[in-house]
Amino acid sequence: MTHRLELTALPDFPTVKAGDDLARLVHEGLGRAGVEPRARDVVVLAQKVVSKAEGRAVRLADVVPSPRAVELAATALKDPRVVELILRESREVIRCRPHVIIVEDLRGYVMANAGIDASNVEGDGEETVLLLPADPDASAARLRADLDRLTGARMGVVINDSFGRAWRLGTCGTAVGVAGLPALLDLRGRPDRNGRTLMTSELALADEVAAAGSLLMGQGGEGHPVIHIRGVPEVGRDGRAADLVRPRNMDLFR
Amino acid sequence: MTHRLELTALPDFPTVKAGDDLARLVHEGLGRAGVEPRARDVVVLAQKVVSKAEGRAVRLADVVPSPRAVELAATALKDPRVVELILRESREVIRCRPHVIIVEDLRGYVMANAGIDASNVEGDGEETVLLLPADPDASAARLRADLDRLTGARMGVVINDSFGRAWRLGTCGTAVGVAGLPALLDLRGRPDRNGRTLMTSELALADEVAAAGSLLMGQGGEGHPVIHIRGVPEVGRDGRAADLVRPRNMDLFR
Repeated sequence: MTHRLELTALPDFPTVKAGDDLARLVHEGLGRAGVEPRARDVVVLAQKVVSKAEGRAVRLADVVPSPRAVELAATALKDPRVVELILRESREVIRCRPHVIIVEDLRGYVMANAGIDASNVEGDGEETVLLLPADPDASAARLRADLDRLTGARMGVVINDSFGRAWRLGTCGTAVGVAGLPALLDLRGRPDRNGRTLMTSELALADEVAAAGSLLMGQGGEGHPVIHIRGVPEVGRDGRAADLVRPRNMDLFR
Repeated sequence: MTHRLELTALPDFPTVKAGDDLARLVHEGLGRAGVEPRARDVVVLAQKVVSKAEGRAVRLADVVPSPRAVELAATALKDPRVVELILRESREVIRCRPHVIIVEDLRGYVMANAGIDASNVEGDGEETVLLLPADPDASAARLRADLDRLTGARMGVVINDSFGRAWRLGTCGTAVGVAGLPALLDLRGRPDRNGRTLMTSELALADEVAAAGSLLMGQGGEGHPVIHIRGVPEVGRDGRAADLVRPRNMDLFR
């Protein structure tokens, strides 16, 4: 078990554009922060910068809403073109109420609006929205490999987003992409200090890392979209954010 | 916005007993860790040490289960005496399945088993379980005032517990008691970098702090039950964990 955790926001992170080499920008940012990367460090990236680098911005003017999108938009009081994109990014609509659409997205995540957010997208007069990376675990794995090449340090990578929760107000940083650390730490069978077997047996390690990183990001990750963390336990073993998805047959709340 | 966050686990924290002066133990632990407390630092405490200090352990031999507890225990495959305590700590049972009882507890928190956990309670031959503090926000406020007296530093206090989530596997550190920092950070009306009004408008700051602290605690907070954090934004303004409870009329998932 580690005794200290140090988080550093990479200062003056540039505005990210489609096609940017994000690993290089992170490497440069680590240099500006005076951080010498080491194996088992973790880099947390706001989903928005990953999506931007991957060209996941969509111009609303190019979106033609389907009849179903128009119908849901009337209930949700949202732009039908945004609802169309939410539907394209989703397997199932779980709840639709005024100002709220909760879906299971293509990655299995249950979340509002399929993670699509209109705020903080660079304008140029055009109305655009950002989709989640198509495969955020693959994005994290690529960033991990690229950072390894650039820095020589085999770090963990977490891509986070702000998720709402069922019974609690406010959003919390949550892992949507993971590489190089266990997303879910299985403690089953480990005895506790008194030799009893632990009842609470799985820790959502990557979600806790995502939440910790979020504390320094500022809202939406636009202040400091990349955070370096030293001291996260168990980094090195591999995992994926997909491991955190509760299987449908274990889900009591749909 | 802060740029750095430093978390330090207080080393060699003693086993806490009913009646112990927890603030004094924290003060001594800060000394052992070489931390000089400052205003706007935050101390995160595992619920278990607060509950133990407050004498919230219950001997199962003293519990007589009601007929309803016996009935639910048969469905949940749990000890009827534990189920009796869960019912006493709850306003409503939301789901009951084999190995799972989800309730709204007396504090409004929706959680498994009303936060009652049999693991890591000190034995002495007796079977005991620990209840949550009766009023964890009041516990946090008392600890804050006591720490202020002992250290001269007006710190924030978060009491955390490991909560499961509706659609994601694994537990995540979650705030059950808060004093001296906003539990919920209201960002509504603050424009983003492009002058748009933010859509995601409330941040569960105390839950993110609780999750960050959990990373150093080890399972159940028994390894390092108390964590000192420097660098949390917005500390100083007051808030309560009760602020994080989603009102029933805004809850789509019961």
